Amino acid sequence: MSDLGESIEIPVAFDAAIEQVTAALAAEGFGVISRIDLDTAFREKLGKEFRRYAILGACNPALAHKAVTARPEVGLLLPCNVTVEESGTGTCVRIVDAGAMMGVGDLSETEEIRDLAADAKERLARVAAALSKASVA
Amino acid sequence: MSDLGESIEIPVAFDAAIEQVTAALAAEGFGVISRIDLDTAFREKLGKEFRRYAILGACNPALAHKAVTARPEVGLLLPCNVTVEESGTGTCVRIVDAGAMMGVGDLSETEEIRDLAADAKERLARVAAALSKASVA
Repeated sequence: MSDLGESIEIPVAFDAAIEQVTAALAAEGFGVISRIDLDTAFREKLGKEFRRYAILGACNPALAHKAVTARPEVGLLLPCNVTVEESGTGTCVRIVDAGAMMGVGDLSETEEIRDLAADAKERLARVAAALSKASVA
Repeated sequence: MSDLGESIEIPVAFDAAIEQVTAALAAEGFGVISRIDLDTAFREKLGKEFRRYAILGACNPALAHKAVTARPEVGLLLPCNVTVEESGTGTCVRIVDAGAMMGVGDLSETEEIRDLAADAKERLARVAAALSKASVA
């Protein structure tokens, strides 16, 4: 899925996938600090049905604190998004590439932001690896 | 503030600024679909005090529906963030550049995504203009 992030197919139903993702994120110090159910929003605001699709906002408080202290405008790119979407055979989970996100604007000119983004990216790669491993177990 | 977005200083207190921003977004068809109070998160999770700082997730349901229908992974970049932060003389509001955001990954290779991002960008520019105007009224 291009350099926007990683995509993982999990052979479990939507709600179970949300639980697995939340646990995998917690193991790397990320809390789910926001949740948007797009299908609910589309039904309520547009009267349109859509497959289940949630955008989870994953936040590692220590990394986020250092980042907004160094460059307050980094909040425009937080939290790190993880999408959870119903697919034909189970659930599709996508995890944003924190490194690519920090390429927006001139944030990456700040060394601390580069280091924090690299840290977040490594943690999220471990989240993706854990979910991939669980999906074939 | 680089090409990450626009920054506007509003000479009102934080909570009043949130109300102004919410109203200005509504006038362009954006609902505030999520809100993260970073200062609260930092206090609860890290025991650290921080100036008031909210990340508002702004979503125009019609634009979002078209975008995730065209390219489901676009959810990794939604909603459009607006940050509201206490500053010395009032409140600093930042609005993300939807065009720059869609430059992450290969999304902008899809014509419909380019058009939707341009539409969102124009609407958010009008939100910024309305807030700037109100701030000097």
